[in-house]
Amino acid sequence: MIGTSVFAQQSFDFSRRNIISPEISSSNTVTFKLLAPNAKEVKVSGDWIPSEGWIPGSKSLTKDENGIWSYTTEPLASELYSYSFNVDGLKVLDPNNVYANRDIANVMNIFIIGGGQADLYKVSNVPHGSVTRTWYNSETLGVSRRLTIYTPPGYEGSTEKYPVFYLLHGAGGDEEAWMALGRASQILDNLIAQGKAKPMIVVMPNGHTANTSAPGESDKGLYKPDMSTMMRSGFAGEMESSFKDIIKFVESTYRVKTDKENRAIAGLSMGGLHSMVISANYPNTFDYVGLFSAATGIDPRNNSEMYKDFDAKLKKQKENGLKLYWIGMGKSDFLYNSGTEFRKKLDGIGMEYTYRESDGGHIWKNWRIYLTEFVPLLFK
Amino acid sequence: MIGTSVFAQQSFDFSRRNIISPEISSSNTVTFKLLAPNAKEVKVSGDWIPSEGWIPGSKSLTKDENGIWSYTTEPLASELYSYSFNVDGLKVLDPNNVYANRDIANVMNIFIIGGGQADLYKVSNVPHGSVTRTWYNSETLGVSRRLTIYTPPGYEGSTEKYPVFYLLHGAGGDEEAWMALGRASQILDNLIAQGKAKPMIVVMPNGHTANTSAPGESDKGLYKPDMSTMMRSGFAGEMESSFKDIIKFVESTYRVKTDKENRAIAGLSMGGLHSMVISANYPNTFDYVGLFSAATGIDPRNNSEMYKDFDAKLKKQKENGLKLYWIGMGKSDFLYNSGTEFRKKLDGIGMEYTYRESDGGHIWKNWRIYLTEFVPLLFK
Repeated sequence: MIGTSVFAQQSFDFSRRNIISPEISSSNTVTFKLLAPNAKEVKVSGDWIPSEGWIPGSKSLTKDENGIWSYTTEPLASELYSYSFNVDGLKVLDPNNVYANRDIANVMNIFIIGGGQADLYKVSNVPHGSVTRTWYNSETLGVSRRLTIYTPPGYEGSTEKYPVFYLLHGAGGDEEAWMALGRASQILDNLIAQGKAKPMIVVMPNGHTANTSAPGESDKGLYKPDMSTMMRSGFAGEMESSFKDIIKFVESTYRVKTDKENRAIAGLSMGGLHSMVISANYPNTFDYVGLFSAATGIDPRNNSEMYKDFDAKLKKQKENGLKLYWIGMGKSDFLYNSGTEFRKKLDGIGMEYTYRESDGGHIWKNWRIYLTEFVPLLFK
Repeated sequence: MIGTSVFAQQSFDFSRRNIISPEISSSNTVTFKLLAPNAKEVKVSGDWIPSEGWIPGSKSLTKDENGIWSYTTEPLASELYSYSFNVDGLKVLDPNNVYANRDIANVMNIFIIGGGQADLYKVSNVPHGSVTRTWYNSETLGVSRRLTIYTPPGYEGSTEKYPVFYLLHGAGGDEEAWMALGRASQILDNLIAQGKAKPMIVVMPNGHTANTSAPGESDKGLYKPDMSTMMRSGFAGEMESSFKDIIKFVESTYRVKTDKENRAIAGLSMGGLHSMVISANYPNTFDYVGLFSAATGIDPRNNSEMYKDFDAKLKKQKENGLKLYWIGMGKSDFLYNSGTEFRKKLDGIGMEYTYRESDGGHIWKNWRIYLTEFVPLLFK
């Protein structure tokens, strides 16, 4: 006979002790609990704990007489945090927390500390936009591809046309990344409700042209996500050369404005590179461009037309004029130096840009912050 | 120094051995693997293993010299399966499988064995519908509420009007349940592509009127889902009395046909009760009604008008006529006897129905099967 059960609805042991984990106190300390009577050592790793070199930081939990391990943090700043447990060397998700995010093949539990920046990441009691997963035909690539679209509150009942913001993910992401890790729909709902952002449509496509969709959403089945194949398909110029198919789909399917001053494009890391290249190749298409921790220093991987004569294209983009070229970069980002080089290039041709330097590195915390700062600048 | 890491991108140990788990062989045996050098006992529990009374069945994994535990099943029939590991008494999700479903507060990994019924649950290389999460205003309840809508392939580019199928979840579910556990969008895509189902819109609302949305999607925050509060709000007649708000929203927002022969309603368990009560209270609204393992024997919990004079309403529904009253029930369902009583009532008033009895009990396997059999009968 097995004393504990993996099926919650049939679990005698667990049902008697309704463990809440994580539990956030009024002072924003967080208590983690795990029932593991047989464990020798339980740790929690999370992104608020400083790492030790390459090794993520962790804190030890202590066991009580009932076999429940627990650990309470110091008060934490307002943020969306990720964590998991490590039980005798094994990664274990918190069985009492149903909320988790996937980053490539790594799943981590999440929680939100409110009372500051992360209030923008919460679902608030405000009007909500709609989020649609749909498929468009890419004539350039000869396949149907999946994308995510946010339409603002009121879109359905209106006849109004809206501006469009194309928001691109990084090398580890897909059309779900900005929604899950980036909290894009919550950020848009909250900024619009506060009157800080104009109602807009946000289009989140998939930047890996070797895939038609996020893992699990195509006929490749429920495969294990693998960064190496993703790296190949994101830097071949194909996302850039096929981007016109996405614009065509959006502008023929949704009630949107179709002029330069009502189009924005931004992306993080690889998606920042894509935004840089796409906006320069279509130099009269976007009035707003955002590069978040952008991989601007990438050498072209092939002979894609998109990368040819790039400096001349950038100059043309500058001469045509645009309303905002926004660059965000973390002080400890591994792309910091190549970002500095890129800004020198912009300085060299006299192209104006807004530069935002933040603490921290190549992390979602920064990309969420950049999104909350970039969106209020759009379409005004 | 910690030898293993919870952060995949910084994990030295794990990155050297790319463990694939689960691995499905060409003969449909499934191998589970878990790196857990310090564990004393590792088991896998899953819904293909017969339970032992109230205790879910499990199988033991064996450890190799590298600390990798493994177990291989017999060939499995085509199905969507759920599983998790149990390591020294602790429930552990498979760290090599990013795919999981939540059922109330219980998260389990999933995999699909194809080659039969479950091919309908896979994402196939066929045209895909769009899936939208949106919010409607419930005038009856005085709040905005979240729902999920599937629109069929071609909806966006068309001017055609479509029939509407309202698909309701059970007491443990929400507006995500039919999408995740029920694989509704995959089933619709596949049946439509095979010419077995008419293109239709599928509306999946939230049947718990105490909530506005699935856990994590409202300003209640990232709380731990709790069945007890859900039970209260699902059986009070409020879903039924406010259902008109959902129909009004759908028919004013989407390009849909608005007559009886183009409306269907079905639900599982509590949602089967809702379908029974709603279709009888609006006796000229739905030509197609489906009760999947329906909780038809529930006594009214309050004085809701919806439950008053129910037998007379049912008789009126019968007299008005409808094209299909479909009842599905598993032989070992705990609601089997009350289902038999309900069918006797229908027999007593001479109301025709189609009855489908399947093996098994009150489980998603049956509800997915019922959906694949019910949908082809609609709007023909």
